[in-house]
Amino acid sequence: MSLPTSSAAPADVTRAPEWGPAPTTAAGWIERAHAVANRLSLDAVDRDRRGATPHDEVRLLKQSGLVTLLAPAAHGGAGQTWSTALHVVRAVSAGDGSIGQLLGYHYLWAWAARLVGTPEQVAAVEQAAGEQEWFFGGAVNPRDDDLVIRLVDGPDGQQLSFNGRKSFSTGGRVSDVTVLEGVIEGTDQHVFAIVPTDQPGLRFAGDWDNLGQRLTESGSVEIDDVRVDWASAAGYVATATGHEFVPRVYNTLNVPIIQVIFTNLYLGIAQGALRTAATYTRGTTRAWPYAKDVKERAVDEFHVQETYGDLTAKLWAAEALADRAAEHLERINAHADSVTPEERGEAAVVIAASKQVAIDVGLEIGTKVFEVTGARASANHVGLDIFWRNVRTHSLHDPVAHKRAEVGRYVLLDELPEPTWYT
Amino acid sequence: MSLPTSSAAPADVTRAPEWGPAPTTAAGWIERAHAVANRLSLDAVDRDRRGATPHDEVRLLKQSGLVTLLAPAAHGGAGQTWSTALHVVRAVSAGDGSIGQLLGYHYLWAWAARLVGTPEQVAAVEQAAGEQEWFFGGAVNPRDDDLVIRLVDGPDGQQLSFNGRKSFSTGGRVSDVTVLEGVIEGTDQHVFAIVPTDQPGLRFAGDWDNLGQRLTESGSVEIDDVRVDWASAAGYVATATGHEFVPRVYNTLNVPIIQVIFTNLYLGIAQGALRTAATYTRGTTRAWPYAKDVKERAVDEFHVQETYGDLTAKLWAAEALADRAAEHLERINAHADSVTPEERGEAAVVIAASKQVAIDVGLEIGTKVFEVTGARASANHVGLDIFWRNVRTHSLHDPVAHKRAEVGRYVLLDELPEPTWYT
Amino acid sequence: MSLPTSSAAPADVTRAPEWGPAPTTAAGWIERAHAVANRLSLDAVDRDRRGATPHDEVRLLKQSGLVTLLAPAAHGGAGQTWSTALHVVRAVSAGDGSIGQLLGYHYLWAWAARLVGTPEQVAAVEQAAGEQEWFFGGAVNPRDDDLVIRLVDGPDGQQLSFNGRKSFSTGGRVSDVTVLEGVIEGTDQHVFAIVPTDQPGLRFAGDWDNLGQRLTESGSVEIDDVRVDWASAAGYVATATGHEFVPRVYNTLNVPIIQVIFTNLYLGIAQGALRTAATYTRGTTRAWPYAKDVKERAVDEFHVQETYGDLTAKLWAAEALADRAAEHLERINAHADSVTPEERGEAAVVIAASKQVAIDVGLEIGTKVFEVTGARASANHVGLDIFWRNVRTHSLHDPVAHKRAEVGRYVLLDELPEPTWYT
Amino acid sequence: MSLPTSSAAPADVTRAPEWGPAPTTAAGWIERAHAVANRLSLDAVDRDRRGATPHDEVRLLKQSGLVTLLAPAAHGGAGQTWSTALHVVRAVSAGDGSIGQLLGYHYLWAWAARLVGTPEQVAAVEQAAGEQEWFFGGAVNPRDDDLVIRLVDGPDGQQLSFNGRKSFSTGGRVSDVTVLEGVIEGTDQHVFAIVPTDQPGLRFAGDWDNLGQRLTESGSVEIDDVRVDWASAAGYVATATGHEFVPRVYNTLNVPIIQVIFTNLYLGIAQGALRTAATYTRGTTRAWPYAKDVKERAVDEFHVQETYGDLTAKLWAAEALADRAAEHLERINAHADSVTPEERGEAAVVIAASKQVAIDVGLEIGTKVFEVTGARASANHVGLDIFWRNVRTHSLHDPVAHKRAEVGRYVLLDELPEPTWYT
Repeated sequence: MSLPTSSAAPADVTRAPEWGPAPTTAAGWIERAHAVANRLSLDAVDRDRRGATPHDEVRLLKQSGLVTLLAPAAHGGAGQTWSTALHVVRAVSAGDGSIGQLLGYHYLWAWAARLVGTPEQVAAVEQAAGEQEWFFGGAVNPRDDDLVIRLVDGPDGQQLSFNGRKSFSTGGRVSDVTVLEGVIEGTDQHVFAIVPTDQPGLRFAGDWDNLGQRLTESGSVEIDDVRVDWASAAGYVATATGHEFVPRVYNTLNVPIIQVIFTNLYLGIAQGALRTAATYTRGTTRAWPYAKDVKERAVDEFHVQETYGDLTAKLWAAEALADRAAEHLERINAHADSVTPEERGEAAVVIAASKQVAIDVGLEIGTKVFEVTGARASANHVGLDIFWRNVRTHSLHDPVAHKRAEVGRYVLLDELPEPTWYT
Repeated sequence: MSLPTSSAAPADVTRAPEWGPAPTTAAGWIERAHAVANRLSLDAVDRDRRGATPHDEVRLLKQSGLVTLLAPAAHGGAGQTWSTALHVVRAVSAGDGSIGQLLGYHYLWAWAARLVGTPEQVAAVEQAAGEQEWFFGGAVNPRDDDLVIRLVDGPDGQQLSFNGRKSFSTGGRVSDVTVLEGVIEGTDQHVFAIVPTDQPGLRFAGDWDNLGQRLTESGSVEIDDVRVDWASAAGYVATATGHEFVPRVYNTLNVPIIQVIFTNLYLGIAQGALRTAATYTRGTTRAWPYAKDVKERAVDEFHVQETYGDLTAKLWAAEALADRAAEHLERINAHADSVTPEERGEAAVVIAASKQVAIDVGLEIGTKVFEVTGARASANHVGLDIFWRNVRTHSLHDPVAHKRAEVGRYVLLDELPEPTWYT
Repeated sequence: MSLPTSSAAPADVTRAPEWGPAPTTAAGWIERAHAVANRLSLDAVDRDRRGATPHDEVRLLKQSGLVTLLAPAAHGGAGQTWSTALHVVRAVSAGDGSIGQLLGYHYLWAWAARLVGTPEQVAAVEQAAGEQEWFFGGAVNPRDDDLVIRLVDGPDGQQLSFNGRKSFSTGGRVSDVTVLEGVIEGTDQHVFAIVPTDQPGLRFAGDWDNLGQRLTESGSVEIDDVRVDWASAAGYVATATGHEFVPRVYNTLNVPIIQVIFTNLYLGIAQGALRTAATYTRGTTRAWPYAKDVKERAVDEFHVQETYGDLTAKLWAAEALADRAAEHLERINAHADSVTPEERGEAAVVIAASKQVAIDVGLEIGTKVFEVTGARASANHVGLDIFWRNVRTHSLHDPVAHKRAEVGRYVLLDELPEPTWYT
Repeated sequence: MSLPTSSAAPADVTRAPEWGPAPTTAAGWIERAHAVANRLSLDAVDRDRRGATPHDEVRLLKQSGLVTLLAPAAHGGAGQTWSTALHVVRAVSAGDGSIGQLLGYHYLWAWAARLVGTPEQVAAVEQAAGEQEWFFGGAVNPRDDDLVIRLVDGPDGQQLSFNGRKSFSTGGRVSDVTVLEGVIEGTDQHVFAIVPTDQPGLRFAGDWDNLGQRLTESGSVEIDDVRVDWASAAGYVATATGHEFVPRVYNTLNVPIIQVIFTNLYLGIAQGALRTAATYTRGTTRAWPYAKDVKERAVDEFHVQETYGDLTAKLWAAEALADRAAEHLERINAHADSVTPEERGEAAVVIAASKQVAIDVGLEIGTKVFEVTGARASANHVGLDIFWRNVRTHSLHDPVAHKRAEVGRYVLLDELPEPTWYT
């Protein structure tokens, strides 16, 4: 994939000295993600209420090195695995679900070249992304109509001009580059391309005004004559008669990967909820004075202990399944070129299962934490509502009932989920 | 109870002609409550977002006649029963949970004279309240310290001066009169009194900034030398040596009554959620295009039908139990002077049970409606989040776990809940 | 309907003197049902283990007067309403789910004449049934093929000869009369008829060997040339050209009625479970000696109290909804000839909802009671497993998921359930 | 530990040739366990109904090599880890929960020497157990009074004579050796010892007659003057003044180990339930003919697919957490002599969490499988009830509510569970 035609990388993205030397192990990176989460959580409530575009937060991700976690070491990245990346998404989401989502989507879109591109495109994108610390966004929502690609004459030959509208995107104005997807007019050829975000043909409406995940820049976007060369059409190679895309199973991993990112997003939010609540219960909640058997501290009440135990056990189970799902992904990544439909399908099923469980536990924790923190914990300055709102909002991405049915068809009928562009 | 020393009733509370003649039956009043709810629901989302003091909403309640629903016909009231009042609270709450709460608390505080007052006080309050369409608020939160009552000399003899702070009140600035409760300094004598809201000694902070029930004026209040005559000390009679309160079981009905108001508040909110969601699913939600067996309309999807059926069945059961709880209350009201501790206790237990079930179903509906409306229903302009927020916030009033234990002790040990001032 | 050609009523069914005079009120009958339940519960565990044909139990039902509860007073019945009958089914089921089921089905089949018969047939059946204390069974399972009815010459003119097999029946060998249903060969005319059970053409296999409801005589039955006159073909009237059935909406009430019987059956079983468990917890269960905060008695443990409270609240809600469903039925019974499809449909929907809730609570109680009784309560001589087994077995009658969808279609689409013969 | 004084190993326990050569990997052993489970499942229903003492089943375990899975290779064992053993317990339990329990308890009791014994005792026991394929049982239930140990003169010096009664044991008559625990009279010294099962002083009542886990030989046992030498008193070393036990943290691992065995037992049973049900749904269940949208096969119904998916996802999550719990155990086993109270406590907490989740999912699957198999699946010959009965019965071992509270205290208060002998 050729480089985007303008450099989108801002000047100030060099790592901040305060973070110290980059970790060298997966555990080290996860620890750093927790440190980032802690910093985010300091003013997460306030930032949620203000809803300002998260420029500073993305800068924090860059400075901490998390943005280039998956990038090859040769280009300044940490060269970590997807398992680590998913734990990082989980950890960051515990501090701020919106920023966890931005980071998770960034990892997917930065990986898009690997999923779809030619070896040359992969090399070029990874070099540019690593060295310039690109933050990736995407405007690919498949529930909208595809963008229309017109073939036009450019200064150096034929170009692809993307046009249309997406009602949801992610990353928007805080990204350096944006992944677009469209269909060449009059054909059924889908094309993915990475373009600089900061160009007149990309107009973000800033109209994301939803219940949760408020800082994700998820609003609509107009795409108006955004151009790329054929060299940037991911996975297309020149042939005698034009340009052609050679599919492989690994292309279709985008959906399992984004879904397992969702899983970890929800788990992180749930962790954040439980941790925030526990701090509140320990420090602020009063024992119930009208109990039959009045306790000195709220933490001594049996139902408080039992509820925390119940929620924790469920969360741990969901986390353990998410880790197992990540192992499927790792096994596939180890042989991207030869992954079989069965491997892809089984990974997709385990990931679907992990997502269901994560949603269930995320919603339950987001709701029940109030019962062990008490009436005053409903004050807006406490911010304990953010967790339910975040899980509830994002987990509507695609209907969980259909995910359950997908897992059901697998165990009942040995049926693998058909790859689609969405879910 | 003597009248408050200034008339708090504004001039514009006469019934609006648009509402037509007052209903004459319970069913008619409930229908009117639904009409009020429909009007409230038109801009409920917008009003929730703005969070303005609900002066107009209380005026609407007055104009519709609902404020004097329980007042005797002789004083311009509708003379309806508590069963009707509870259905009215439920119906109004379906349109706007905050306004339903204000109305429910109003009914309780307007009834406080009946619960605690002498026959003369009851007569005087009901005349004034009925004729002037008083809207009642209360500043009685028993989890704060009691107000301190000092005995002071007034123009016409000894007066009681209330002083202190309550961290929660209800009704606040939109009420005409406020119920106070305090303890006479140096004694353990509790005194309830009704005072005009609009006086310098009552200072509402307007600091209610919580997750839900945003329009309930539930903030803190400072009480500074608010004075009443002994004649206004509810239930106190002059004796040879001073003033004395003669307790009866019916005094302790305040807690069961407020709890069954809670039940109906939550049920109304749950109804509102389900109704709002159903309208959305019918009109806006799209069938899932990636289903194995794609349907034309979202309403044709099995899981959508099943979820609505499941939630509806649970809601109906909770409503039926709430109605049964109301019957207990009616039976008690029919012989207020001779109600036994057993009757009081059994009513309290059934009410406690009804509240638990209402909370469970309210939270479940508030969460699951999103799964049958879809991702776009998380947009803030839809306002589908209000229902969960409202139930979640108010249902923290007292820990539901302890209510469950209360019901448990009843069936296990034949133990009746001990009357307290709170729960 | 003409009388069955042989008297099926045994000689010893006259009321036992020990039961004293018949109650005269609904409350009195329900109390009697509780007394019957208490007697049944004395050896319910033992009888369940033995699985013997419940001749004695049916005799008990007859002696107590419950068998003729719905029969007109003119014919020796109690002339009670369906609401009372449903409470009686619930009460008896708390003592023994199998016997509750037998009684409930009996009430339906005894009512079949009312649902389908001509006025003359109703009168004849009710006289015979009341005076001879018939216990009704049925062999009508519509998931089997219909019985084939052949028109044959009889001694007094044309007769209908029923032939075929039903894989499930109820009542079987303990019934006096059995309701059959078939289709006249070569037509689509369905015919119901009541026949004496004790005849060579009815051969019960005694092959009911299922998880629960073990004493219900629900096995398969072969029907071999069982004959009735045209006068016994329920609802058929002679016309110029033969015999004709004139349908009315009330005919289709059989399914809602049997479904609301199911609801009360499950509720009764759940009551029995909770009551049996509470007795055990109070008398036998030991407090947990390794608790953080060891209690003297198991009933003092918070989780024990909370669990009983939770289960009780849910059960009460389910009961209240069942009572509301019964009210729908009463309203319809008050004008059987003019019931509209809307009334029928709405009753069916509320009944469907009540059944779902009853199943949920029945299974939950049947499972959770063990957690508050402890390990030794799993001993077979305790018999605490019977309740889960009974609810689990019978509630599979028709898939509850489809009932939920039925309720869902009603609230979403205003769609009434289509009358069928089964569910 | 000295050898028991008589050889308990029967002559016919040599590996059956049909099983082929012993596996050499963990995966191979788990596969063999599945093969054993498949064989057990062939007649699991019939064997459950008969309730005969499982001599053949234990022989099968021996012949397959599973009995010596943990035994060192030097003594003929497979030398596998506890992780493998737990997967084996899970796999066998899927075929027959009773046999899975027997095997799991056997592993614990065979490990008891490692937990408590001196190096010499460990060596001696492992040699005898491996070479003679001992099947271990235990009579240690700590909720009974401790056995009383009297010091008596034996032929070769002082002996310990165990006396008393245990109301529950496991393995009983099918074991070769039995672990006893008692307290030396007049002291608080606890002593564990392994004794031959087949001796007059051990009298098993055969009185296990409970709801589930019917083939586990869990009845009561009388212990009457069962003697061992001091050399067999596990962990005791001779000192100048007598015999002394030197405790270490690893001694207290018995409870976490048995609890994680429970986890895997429940998960195996749940797997068995889901697998048995899926086979039935695929092969036997009919689509619902009265559905709004009738499907050809039951497996095509959305609710069937969704239910299987939901249950599967939850089961997978529980399994993943169980595996994580096993990893804690492995880490501890790697340094038994230096395990810290924190490591022990954290393992115990994760194991407690895994048990809760396994119980929840086991009971839910055991109940819901019926809803996707249908009414006929309640026939006793299908045996689908065994799974619920097995989980329900065994999971009462200790109250799950207290386990939840234990996990809750850990996350709320950093409190580690105190080691006890039971839970």
